[in-house]
Formats: sequence, C-alpha cells, structure tokens
Amino acid sequence: MISVAVYIKGEVEYYEKIKKEFSEKASDIQILDWSSALRGPDSIDYALVWMPPIGNLARLSSLKAVFSLSAGVDHIVARDPDWPAHLPLIRMAGEETGRLMTDYLLWACISVIRGSRGWALQQQKKLWKRNVITRSITDCTVGIMGLGQLGRYAAEHLSRCGFVVRGWSRSPKEIEGVKTFDGAAGMKAFLAGVDILICLLPHTPQTRNIISAQVLHALRPGAAFINVGRGEHVVENDLLSALNEGMLSAAVLDVFHHEPLPESSPLWSHPSVIVTPHVASQASVCARVNYLIGSIRRLERGERLEQAFDISQGY
Amino acid sequence: MISVAVYIKGEVEYYEKIKKEFSEKASDIQILDWSSALRGPDSIDYALVWMPPIGNLARLSSLKAVFSLSAGVDHIVARDPDWPAHLPLIRMAGEETGRLMTDYLLWACISVIRGSRGWALQQQKKLWKRNVITRSITDCTVGIMGLGQLGRYAAEHLSRCGFVVRGWSRSPKEIEGVKTFDGAAGMKAFLAGVDILICLLPHTPQTRNIISAQVLHALRPGAAFINVGRGEHVVENDLLSALNEGMLSAAVLDVFHHEPLPESSPLWSHPSVIVTPHVASQASVCARVNYLIGSIRRLERGERLEQAFDISQGY
Ligand SMILES: NC(=O)c1ccc[n+]([C@@H]2O[C@H](COP(=O)([O-])OP(=O)(O)OC[C@H]3O[C@@H](n4cnc5c(N)ncnc54)[C@H](OP(=O)(O)O)[C@@H]3O)[C@@H](O)[C@H]2O)c1
Ligand SMILES: NC(=O)c1ccc[n+]([C@@H]2O[C@H](COP(=O)([O-])OP(=O)(O)OC[C@H]3O[C@@H](n4cnc5c(N)ncnc54)[C@H](OP(=O)(O)O)[C@@H]3O)[C@@H](O)[C@H]2O)c1
Repeated sequence: MISVAVYIKGEVEYYEKIKKEFSEKASDIQILDWSSALRGPDSIDYALVWMPPIGNLARLSSLKAVFSLSAGVDHIVARDPDWPAHLPLIRMAGEETGRLMTDYLLWACISVIRGSRGWALQQQKKLWKRNVITRSITDCTVGIMGLGQLGRYAAEHLSRCGFVVRGWSRSPKEIEGVKTFDGAAGMKAFLAGVDILICLLPHTPQTRNIISAQVLHALRPGAAFINVGRGEHVVENDLLSALNEGMLSAAVLDVFHHEPLPESSPLWSHPSVIVTPHVASQASVCARVNYLIGSIRRLERGERLEQAFDISQGY
Repeated sequence: MISVAVYIKGEVEYYEKIKKEFSEKASDIQILDWSSALRGPDSIDYALVWMPPIGNLARLSSLKAVFSLSAGVDHIVARDPDWPAHLPLIRMAGEETGRLMTDYLLWACISVIRGSRGWALQQQKKLWKRNVITRSITDCTVGIMGLGQLGRYAAEHLSRCGFVVRGWSRSPKEIEGVKTFDGAAGMKAFLAGVDILICLLPHTPQTRNIISAQVLHALRPGAAFINVGRGEHVVENDLLSALNEGMLSAAVLDVFHHEPLPESSPLWSHPSVIVTPHVASQASVCARVNYLIGSIRRLERGERLEQAFDISQGY
C-alpha cells in the first residue's frame, strides 16, 4: 500500500472529493488526512499539499516526494523554511490547466479591450451608455511574462486567435508566431509597445515585486495589465498609481498578496479593475488525480519527472 | 456635387464626426443635416440614416439610394411604411464589423462558461468565493443562428479558436470546420446538444419571436443564450422563465425590444444576465465613411451592391 497524506488549507470538501477519486482509480493508494498522517509520520510515502502548516512536512520522515496542489510551489518553498528540500517537489500540471488558463486570458484580454468593467458598473446602476471601441484583438499586442508550461500554451493559442503576441522568459525560447525576449537585458525591448501585459511568472525571490512603476511606465500609454501569476509579483501602490494617473487603462487581477482579498482593499471598488477570486486555472479533480496517479507510478519506477521544482532556479 | 442627407437619432456629435471624415476624404460629396435636407428635398442624392422620422425618406424626391448606418435595416423597413422601396437600400458592412462582432462573441461565450456575471456580483459585494469551472471552450458546442456577413465570419473564427461550432440559416451553406443546418426542417437537429446559442439573425417577420420557450428547451439543459441580433427576436418572458427554471444557466444580451433598456426591466438585475448597451459591433467612423464613399462611387458608376436589401427575402 502506498500512503499519501493530504493537506489543503480551508477545503474540507475538496479533500473528500480527492479521496473518493483516488479510491475509484487506484486501490493500492491510500489517502490520509493530515492529522491521521501526523500520528504515524514515518509511514507516509507522499504528501499532497496546499499551504501546509510550517514545519509539518519535515516531520514525515519516510517521504519520497511532495506534490503541490497548484502549479506554483511558493506556498511551500517561500513559506516553510524546513520543507524537505532534498526530495522531489512536484507541481500540478497537465494540458487541462493550460487550456483553462488560456480561456481565462482570452476573456480577460477582450474584457480590457472592450471595457467590460464599465458595462458591469453600468448594469449595476441600470445605466445605458454606449462606449464605442473599434479596436479588435488583431490590433493588440499582448506581452506574456513567463513562457513555461502555461505561458507557452497561452502564447501559442492567443496568437492563433489573432493577437500579436510576444513573450519574455529567463532563458531564450522559440515559439511559432511569437516574438520572444529573455532575461534582464531583453526586458525593455519586450515591454515597449505592449498593449496588454500578462504576468504568468512563478513567484521567486527574483520575480517578487517585478511589476513596478518602472515596468508599467514602459508599456504603451493606456495599456492594460492582467495578473494570473501571484500577488507578490505586484507593487500594489505602483499599480494603483498607474491606473489613477491613466498610464494604465485597466487591470484584471486573479491573484493577490492576501487571499481572500480583504474587504478593505481599494482594488474591489476600483472602476478600472476586475477582481476574480483565484480561478484562472483550476484543473478538475478528475484531471488532477489522473496526473497524480501517473506521477506516483513513475516515481515508484524510479523515473524523474519534468515538473519537479529546480532548487537552483527557484521554480 | 453629390449631396448626402444624414439622420442619426439621438447622436449629434456622431453626425459631426461623419461630416468631418467625409470632408477630408471626398471633396465632391456634401454632407447635409436632416433639416437642411428637408428644406431642399429634391436636391438630395443619398440618405444615410439610423431610425429616420417616419415618412421623411419619401419626401426626398431625387434620392438614388438609402444607406443604413447599421447592418440591420429593420429600423427603416419595419418602422416606416412609406420608405422608398423601389430604391437600393444598402446596409453597413466591412470586415471590421465581423472582427468586432467576433471579439464580442468570444468574450460573451467565455463569460457564460466561466460565470463572469457571478464574479462581477461578488466584486460588487467585495465577496471572495471561488467557482470551480473545469469546462474549456474546446468542450463547448456553439450554435449560431444566422450565417450571413457576420455569422459566417464569427463561425469560422470561433471554430479556429477551439469551439465546436454549428450554424443555421435560411439557405444551405458550406463553412469549413462548421456543421451547417438550414430552414425550419433543420432547426431541431441544429438545436439539440447546443451549449451556447447565439442569435445573429436579421429582424424580419419570419424571425420575430423566434427565440421562444420551445427553442430554449431544445438546447442542452443548462445551456446559455447570447443575443446580438435584435431584441424583437426574443420572447422575453420565455427567456426569463427558462433562466429562472434553470433550463438556461446564463444569458448575454446586447439588444432589446426597447433601447435604451428601461430602468424597470428585470433583465438589469437578473443574477444570470449580462446586459451590454448595443455595442457588440460598431465600425469606426473611419471604416464606415470609407465603406460609404466606396459604395457611393460604385452606385454612381451604375454597379449593383452586394449589401443591398432584398425585398423578396425581407433582409
Ligand atoms: N491564477 C491561477 O489560477 C494560476 C494557476 C496556475 C498557475 N499560476 C501561476 O502561474 C505560474 C507559472 O506556471 P507555469 O506552470 O507556467 O510555470 P513554469 O512552467 O515553471 O514556467 C515559469 C516561466 O517563468 C519564467 N521565469 C521564471 N523566473 C524568471 C525570471 N526571474 N525572469 C524571467 N523569466 C522567469 C521561466 O523561464 P524559463 O522558461 O527560462 O525557465 C518560465 O518560462 C505559477 O508559478 C503560478 O504562480 C496561477
Ligand atoms: N448588436 C450589434 O452590435 C449588431 C451589429 C451588427 C448587426 N447586428 C444584427 O445582426 C444581424 C445580421 O447581420 P448580417 O450582416 O450578418 O446579416 P446578413 O448578411 O443579411 O445575414 C443574415 C443571415 O440570417 C439568415 N436568415 C435570415 N432570415 C432567416 C430565416 N427566416 N431563417 C433562417 N435564417 C435566416 C440568412 O440566411 P441566408 O444566408 O440563407 O440568406 C443569413 O445567413 C443584423 O440584421 C442585425 O440585426 C447587430
């Protein structure tokens, strides 16, 4: 029997769904809730976690690998100084996450082009006022920061839908139909002329606060910003100033420094900001469990997984 | 000198923009406002109108053709019994309108798939609640009613973006990647299994009230409806019942029986309805005037225009 301990902060029902899905698909894998696991910490083979309690992972002495329930692993490596860094840390992946992220981005891009936040505010007030926008997606340059699993898929697809797409990453990339830039040296050229900037980076010490006044002012005046990376990427005051000064025309934000976004945040009621509750890309329980079972089988056979955290890169 | 009389209900500024654009591009075409035109009604060559006062067009005795400022001509033929039916009636066209309509539809489709109306209502209340949707556009069948200038363009493009697309029109059509149906006989098969129904028909006596309980109940349960045709296509009570009974999960409405939509309409505050103020596709002044000048030149050379109203078909 293979034992998997699960911790998902704030989501009891979701734990039950995952447990059920595993029991239907893999009878040799046993799912344990976190407190049961901590009562027999040396019999756990794998941990599957979202925001695990600090110090807990280190207590599971027989662990072979840690799975993150999200594509980002910052909720482990940036929070828990004692996480078992010698073990493979595997992040969530699968084609479904790329597709869902791309749908969301397509929606967010057209939302900012057409001013859908204004339509929603008017609907709230039962106000009929036509805004004449004659810019189409084919007139817009989208710049994607991060060309990994999700960014590359999104870049290819947005380009196929008609956007002019460019991308930026750490190492050089080649993507059909997409102009690519890399590293600090390529950043200025990447940003100049961008109409819609998308942040799809992982959160690392290098990318923290990367969306600053300097970056926002380097875009085409009146550009828009979409954040589906992490809240930590953004200097929130710089973003608000750029919106209030009109340097930026709109923002769509799915991720925030503090989630749930506190009621006191000025972002909620900003007339140019669309807030969504971290929903850009969540794979189905079915797709997640399929991916997890496949990954566990490969690890058990001694294979290396592509989606493992690279400690030297920090993501 | 060629004289063009212009009437655009409720839009003084827009008249000025059109006049300026013409003066820069065609010095031999003179633009006149409606009241000046009515003072010398036998010297007007063309009329360019949106919702012209009933009976007025008939008074322009030397008219060679009438231009509609919109793609639909129902604001003339369904309202004014005395419109000069012996003259060419030309509707607005051009690639730009297809592109803008398609952007809007892409946005509306993803809005209903992901539940963006719910996000907007939550933002209004500063409420953070994640809705887990794992359906992607590739899992959705979109059915487009109307495969004319706009419908065909939208069908091709939505298919290229990943949707499964089918279409319905009066006469048979062939469109790459799109399953097509036609006429009353093809309607039932067209509707069965549709996840998102789009109405992009012209308003005629045959299409009035076409979106009824019967049609809405023939879709896949929980389907969504998007109206960018005309308000007159919809039996509004049937639409509201289908939404309230859960037969339909969502609607995005850009056109209404009465525009501006009256404050008393229950659509404004319906939790499953997105209201936009007839903005799905409005060509720019520049594109419109280019199209109008080109059309006037062709008519002056005695050519026939494709975008002429066909009185036998009613659109
Ligand atoms: N909102 C949501 O619902 C949601 C869902 C899933 C994921 N996410 C976020 O999206 C992030 C990306 O996911 P992914 O799976 O695509 O990650 P990934 O495959 O690890 O890709 C990361 C990309 O970012 C680039 N990058 C990393 N550090 C960089 C730096 N310092 N400078 C320039 N480029 C840098 C990488 O460059 P190289 O290619 O050169 O390595 C790579 O292209 C996640 O970490 C998570 O924060 C959000
Ligand atoms: N919301 C907006 O911003 C906006 C903007 C522009 C237009 N519109 C609306 O969109 C409508 C369509 O524009 P368009 O330029 O695409 O028109 P179009 O080129 O005339 O095409 C009309 C389509 O509807 C089909 N049709 C007409 N009567 C039918 C019937 N009784 N049964 C089945 N199919 C029927 C036609 O079939 P056949 O191909 O067989 O003739 C054709 O495919 C306009 O009339 C207007 O109401 C709205």
